[in-house]
Amino acid sequence: MTDEEKRIRADFPLLANRDIVYLDNSATTQKPQSVLEVDLSFYQKRNANPLRGLYQLSIDATDAYEGARAKVADFIGAGRPEEIVFTRNATEALNLVAYSYGRSFLKEGDEIVLSVAEHHSNILPWQGVAQATGARLVWFECDDTGKLDPERLRELVNEHTKIVAISQVSNVFGRSNDAGEYARIAHEAGAVYVCDGAQSVPHMPVDVREMDCDFLAFSGHKMLSAMGIGVLYARYELLEKMPPFMTGGEMIEYVTREGATYAEIPHKFEAGTVNAGGAVSLAAAIDYYHKIGFETIQRREEDLSVYMMEGMKKIPHIHILGSEDPTDHHGIVTFTIDGVHPHDVAAIFDASGICVRAGHHCAQPLHRHLTKISEKVAYMSTTRASLAFYNTREDVDRFLTCLADIRREMGYGNE
Amino acid sequence: MTDEEKRIRADFPLLANRDIVYLDNSATTQKPQSVLEVDLSFYQKRNANPLRGLYQLSIDATDAYEGARAKVADFIGAGRPEEIVFTRNATEALNLVAYSYGRSFLKEGDEIVLSVAEHHSNILPWQGVAQATGARLVWFECDDTGKLDPERLRELVNEHTKIVAISQVSNVFGRSNDAGEYARIAHEAGAVYVCDGAQSVPHMPVDVREMDCDFLAFSGHKMLSAMGIGVLYARYELLEKMPPFMTGGEMIEYVTREGATYAEIPHKFEAGTVNAGGAVSLAAAIDYYHKIGFETIQRREEDLSVYMMEGMKKIPHIHILGSEDPTDHHGIVTFTIDGVHPHDVAAIFDASGICVRAGHHCAQPLHRHLTKISEKVAYMSTTRASLAFYNTREDVDRFLTCLADIRREMGYGNE
Repeated sequence: MTDEEKRIRADFPLLANRDIVYLDNSATTQKPQSVLEVDLSFYQKRNANPLRGLYQLSIDATDAYEGARAKVADFIGAGRPEEIVFTRNATEALNLVAYSYGRSFLKEGDEIVLSVAEHHSNILPWQGVAQATGARLVWFECDDTGKLDPERLRELVNEHTKIVAISQVSNVFGRSNDAGEYARIAHEAGAVYVCDGAQSVPHMPVDVREMDCDFLAFSGHKMLSAMGIGVLYARYELLEKMPPFMTGGEMIEYVTREGATYAEIPHKFEAGTVNAGGAVSLAAAIDYYHKIGFETIQRREEDLSVYMMEGMKKIPHIHILGSEDPTDHHGIVTFTIDGVHPHDVAAIFDASGICVRAGHHCAQPLHRHLTKISEKVAYMSTTRASLAFYNTREDVDRFLTCLADIRREMGYGNE
Repeated sequence: MTDEEKRIRADFPLLANRDIVYLDNSATTQKPQSVLEVDLSFYQKRNANPLRGLYQLSIDATDAYEGARAKVADFIGAGRPEEIVFTRNATEALNLVAYSYGRSFLKEGDEIVLSVAEHHSNILPWQGVAQATGARLVWFECDDTGKLDPERLRELVNEHTKIVAISQVSNVFGRSNDAGEYARIAHEAGAVYVCDGAQSVPHMPVDVREMDCDFLAFSGHKMLSAMGIGVLYARYELLEKMPPFMTGGEMIEYVTREGATYAEIPHKFEAGTVNAGGAVSLAAAIDYYHKIGFETIQRREEDLSVYMMEGMKKIPHIHILGSEDPTDHHGIVTFTIDGVHPHDVAAIFDASGICVRAGHHCAQPLHRHLTKISEKVAYMSTTRASLAFYNTREDVDRFLTCLADIRREMGYGNE
């Protein structure tokens, strides 16, 4: 282990407490001690119900919460903190857009363009909008390497298109999509671009104004913070015209028996007691990102991806999904093994203390598509190893050693 | 301070760290160190994305999460863990019922009966259902002491009634409503009873089967746990027939491009990565409740309520809302002072380090009602002091000393 690795790994207590190789970072990351301590300290020193109290402790809690919002805005280059709505996770953020924007502003004959490679959380809410409004889903197909060609998108988008929903980084391929170009194509047609950033924001600098997306959703727990906190970024003008999604305390201005006028954004979208502890944890995670730096994070994740993919290519019967170029994987390496079901793959890895994920990765339409267009995918299921900057080459070695043995363990002999 | 008080208060780090009198417990409670440590330990030893992984760490996280669900079910007497849906807070729980049950099963001509004393989170979602479906809201009025007479409810409920929504304990009066009787009246008319338990579950033993409610909503942060976790209890048969609210990962069985079949309850209602850390924190809070015991909690909260109200009654120009009987306040003492705006009251308390809440307490329809029927309420605002079992008579003394001086501070002299 290098000194850098020792230094980084010392920040993550779970890595010391469990003798495992954790390669499920796209599902959730481990948490640095500094993030856990900030959260602890909030409850020990500043805990009160934010936004509601006139006393100092509640003002402290409000400052902590709104300070977290400002930090998130800065992290993704939002123009103003009010463009950040705290949610439970990326899924709730996408549901918020679908319920509030989609169900209010779409009608029969309108079209929603979404890619077949989306996570269910960027598919199901749009199916709901289509059902409720009579709008139609239009599918943007990827090729067998997961590429989503903007030229193809251009053919699908027209004057009926109201929403274009595509992730910035696929949770199966790790491939970075041309989000800026999708935004441009959407805007030329007068549509909005909804970007699922769950797998991009944790791994690369994301600037919402540069990308020019209208909505961006991501989750704190996939980027070092506690669970239960997520983010919806939305352009100010859009948030202003959108109706509330959930209703209750703290999101109103005035309530009568007949109806209500709503609070200013972003509070209009944050009904009930907010998760200030979660927001503070996310802010601490962002501090940690700043401390380590994306340069180091990207260098490390790329180096490990290269090392892992080179090792995998030497093992027969292994097929890596997505780009041939490891730098276009953002740490996500999804693969199949001839004749071995991914659930068996994961079980064998687990027996060696290696955490990888087997299944459809919440992307069943993509897996169905791949079974049709790619010889690599035989099941509605694949195995995914996903790296973070705190992984090491030793982790990858343990992974590769186990991987090389799987077909033999399944009785295939040494062929 | 008694030995019991010393022992209890030693469990709450914020009370040692801040020289304050915390009397805003109905907004949120402080957290015992043991609860914070369990949460910390989860992230240090068991953190993974639950429900999705086939490896041991994820199974550990799943066990922690589902163990929390079972503990919550047991705490409120639910028949089975599947009747517990984890949400962000009570507000989301009530929105879930309104969106999923209300908007699916109500139609024009149907009636929703709700009390005028409800928190906005038990009003606004029903206004949304009424708007979306054409159902009508029917208001159940309280008298000037906050009493919601079941006989009056009986007159309002009829064959058109589909939902009866009333809190078990009012967040303004602290008054315990006759929830069991409301449930009976609702059921006789074929309606469901939705109980807002945000202020009851933290302060008294609640048994959903004894009460016979159909839905019960409450928040973890008001009962010693971290923020960002709440609970919807719902009867199994109801959850089974309800459509999902939010959609995304983990709540599906099978997704095609056209639609989806959904997972079994309760997962159908928990879209995206769950807040396992929050659930674990709530389970630790329940452990703490068991350790202290409701007998002690209720004895202490009643004793403090009696002591506080007796003290307040000796101060001229103070008017306590709700019951004359301190044992029917569950630690909530809302009051007004002749000629002094509640915001000034709270500011003066804050200057002495005493945290009380001034405002409409998310109950504007109630405050408007009270300005009409009660001479005690002059503004759309009142001041609320809310006690927890970790408060002391010394806290109350500091509160009373400050209270006795407020009119003089506002320039009223010694009249």
